[in-house]
Amino acid sequence: MPSEGYEPRLARRAERMKASEIRELLKLLDQPDIISFAGGIPDPALFPVDAARDAYQRALASPEAAAVALQYSVSEGYLPLRQWIADHMGRLGAPCDPDNILITSGSQQALDFLGKTLLSPGDTALVTAPTYLGALQAFSAYEPVYDHLRLEDGNDTPDSFRARARAAAPEGEVKFAYVVPDFANPTGLTLSHHARTRLLTLADELDVPVIEDGAYAALRYGGEEVPPLITLDCAAKGGIDFSRVIYCGTFSKTIAPGLRIGWIAAAKPLVRRLVLVKQASDLAVSVINQIVMSELVHRTYDAQVNNARDLYRRRRDAMLAALAETMPPGVSWSRPDGGLFVWVTLPDHLDGAQLLARAVEEVRVAFVPGGAFFADGHGANTIRLSFSRADEATIAEGVRRIAKLLS
Amino acid sequence: MPSEGYEPRLARRAERMKASEIRELLKLLDQPDIISFAGGIPDPALFPVDAARDAYQRALASPEAAAVALQYSVSEGYLPLRQWIADHMGRLGAPCDPDNILITSGSQQALDFLGKTLLSPGDTALVTAPTYLGALQAFSAYEPVYDHLRLEDGNDTPDSFRARARAAAPEGEVKFAYVVPDFANPTGLTLSHHARTRLLTLADELDVPVIEDGAYAALRYGGEEVPPLITLDCAAKGGIDFSRVIYCGTFSKTIAPGLRIGWIAAAKPLVRRLVLVKQASDLAVSVINQIVMSELVHRTYDAQVNNARDLYRRRRDAMLAALAETMPPGVSWSRPDGGLFVWVTLPDHLDGAQLLARAVEEVRVAFVPGGAFFADGHGANTIRLSFSRADEATIAEGVRRIAKLLS
Repeated sequence: MPSEGYEPRLARRAERMKASEIRELLKLLDQPDIISFAGGIPDPALFPVDAARDAYQRALASPEAAAVALQYSVSEGYLPLRQWIADHMGRLGAPCDPDNILITSGSQQALDFLGKTLLSPGDTALVTAPTYLGALQAFSAYEPVYDHLRLEDGNDTPDSFRARARAAAPEGEVKFAYVVPDFANPTGLTLSHHARTRLLTLADELDVPVIEDGAYAALRYGGEEVPPLITLDCAAKGGIDFSRVIYCGTFSKTIAPGLRIGWIAAAKPLVRRLVLVKQASDLAVSVINQIVMSELVHRTYDAQVNNARDLYRRRRDAMLAALAETMPPGVSWSRPDGGLFVWVTLPDHLDGAQLLARAVEEVRVAFVPGGAFFADGHGANTIRLSFSRADEATIAEGVRRIAKLLS
Repeated sequence: MPSEGYEPRLARRAERMKASEIRELLKLLDQPDIISFAGGIPDPALFPVDAARDAYQRALASPEAAAVALQYSVSEGYLPLRQWIADHMGRLGAPCDPDNILITSGSQQALDFLGKTLLSPGDTALVTAPTYLGALQAFSAYEPVYDHLRLEDGNDTPDSFRARARAAAPEGEVKFAYVVPDFANPTGLTLSHHARTRLLTLADELDVPVIEDGAYAALRYGGEEVPPLITLDCAAKGGIDFSRVIYCGTFSKTIAPGLRIGWIAAAKPLVRRLVLVKQASDLAVSVINQIVMSELVHRTYDAQVNNARDLYRRRRDAMLAALAETMPPGVSWSRPDGGLFVWVTLPDHLDGAQLLARAVEEVRVAFVPGGAFFADGHGANTIRLSFSRADEATIAEGVRRIAKLLS
């Protein structure tokens, strides 16, 4: 018996689910004197607190209302919320009806369910490098192999992707492509219209679905709108039921993450499958939270998005200005049109994780080393800076301190 | 392209996640003139509505409180709630500290996470026949083989379990035993003290964990208390960190299911693993719901449990009395000491699913055919009656109508 306690024999997949050293490290950094550019979390000043309080009151105002709000509910989700999301998808150019929508526990659960539904061990998932760390964590539970999309530079041929998938595992095949096309986590970059059509062509040739992670899509501060992948594919295929794009959305960045509500929009046959996955996994999202979220989006969505854009645009501008003013030669960075992140590339010989250790110790600034976002161990000389939580003066001061370390 | 829409190639496991015909059928039965003994769902008259409304108010009473209640939160769960649960486990005889507790989205998610953490395809899960349908749905996503415990009659030898596991799959091994020891869904039966110690001995010999589903454990209406498996094993092994029992609890039957809050209590090394699974699967349970549940259990748990026991005891008594009065010879049923269900065995030549069809059509009564609860296709001549949602007079009338069909 090991001294720290009983441990059962684990599934093979559990070996791939390791503590993220970065997340563990960042837990320790939630100290008031640290300027944090680390978490990609929304500023709570934007939360619609009064409207949320009113909505919870109304959901529990009568025994009849409470008998619904506190009871079990259907796995697909609360119909008025699914209807709002279907209308929202229509405004994005991808007309849906509620049967195209599954409510999930944040978009993280959407990614988990898609891995669960699509990946057998040894199958290949196509991702960008870098990509969203949480997506890699969700998919890795289902033991895939990762291969890399090069979306702006021109992809490999479908045959070469297929050949590598078969080489990786005897029965392995490419099962999907995953992208964050707008203001990506971690880079802040937006995929060009040309790269989007090329990705859809590749997916058609490989006959695989494309998972479009739209977590930041509502937070555009400038530049020209590029249509979502699902919009382009719905136009090409004649509607969402014939589209191979699976859209994952969330209210975490526009309303509040604490209610844990996201969604999947996709062709109905897949949504019906995913409803069974939801039933087997956790039955349903909290129905009182869905009722409250439905009221919040009906009443406040546009105002929430406008407020968020105004606040984060000023912070992005402050961060880009400070980087331009203070960074030494050899350091470059992305200029995002939206989202929460600037991606900084250091000179090749520098290591983001070592820089973080020095930054915390010597100048009390935190950020995320970029290597965590690569499935393949690259990107040691990169760091991700979030501008979502600090005011403009603090952003300027924090960037100045990092620059001092680099000079 | 199939006419109903695009379908991607699925993971192998997705083939095992089929729509439950029973659940689909029962969806259609939520009509006001039907007497339903179908769902195992709590009576909403028991929900602590006023206390919940107050608790949501307080969680959002100030910007500082709302900045926590609506934000992202840690994957292991809200500390004051974990502390209450740890104390509750102590009252059950299994002293814990908060690091032994993971908050989950209902106990359904606990079962999903344990399947995910423990089962590789082809591994064997030991279950009773019948057992909780939702557990089979959760585990089946991870492609196990099921083998059967015979807890009261004497189990097979460890070697025979091991031999069948290896015969089922070349690398297959027995990975866990799953039981609902108190007032089981679907049978209502309670495992004897003797059968519990025998199960723990078998688990020791097989060196596998035992998943104890305590969903109904608080709802005892009579009979003699039997210690939980985790209590017996903590006593034998010297504490929860050395116990092989993994306890799954829920507030769905005692407070309200709509907040989606359950928990796992287990040895710390496993809980640390499960926190990573939670992070990768959906980050965390809604923190506002955890804050509200923490306040509800601190203020109302004992009163809630007492109210539920009083209400459901009367309904159980009404159902048992009506069965004794009206059922023809050849029909037998369980006499549960708690929980929500009575399990009825019909004469061998009768089929529960056919009886349901007639009952709905001819006498407007619904229940669940028992075959759904067997992993192996047995139990066609059984039905499950829930007494949780109808008042005593309605229970008597519904049972009388079923009896009429059988006479």
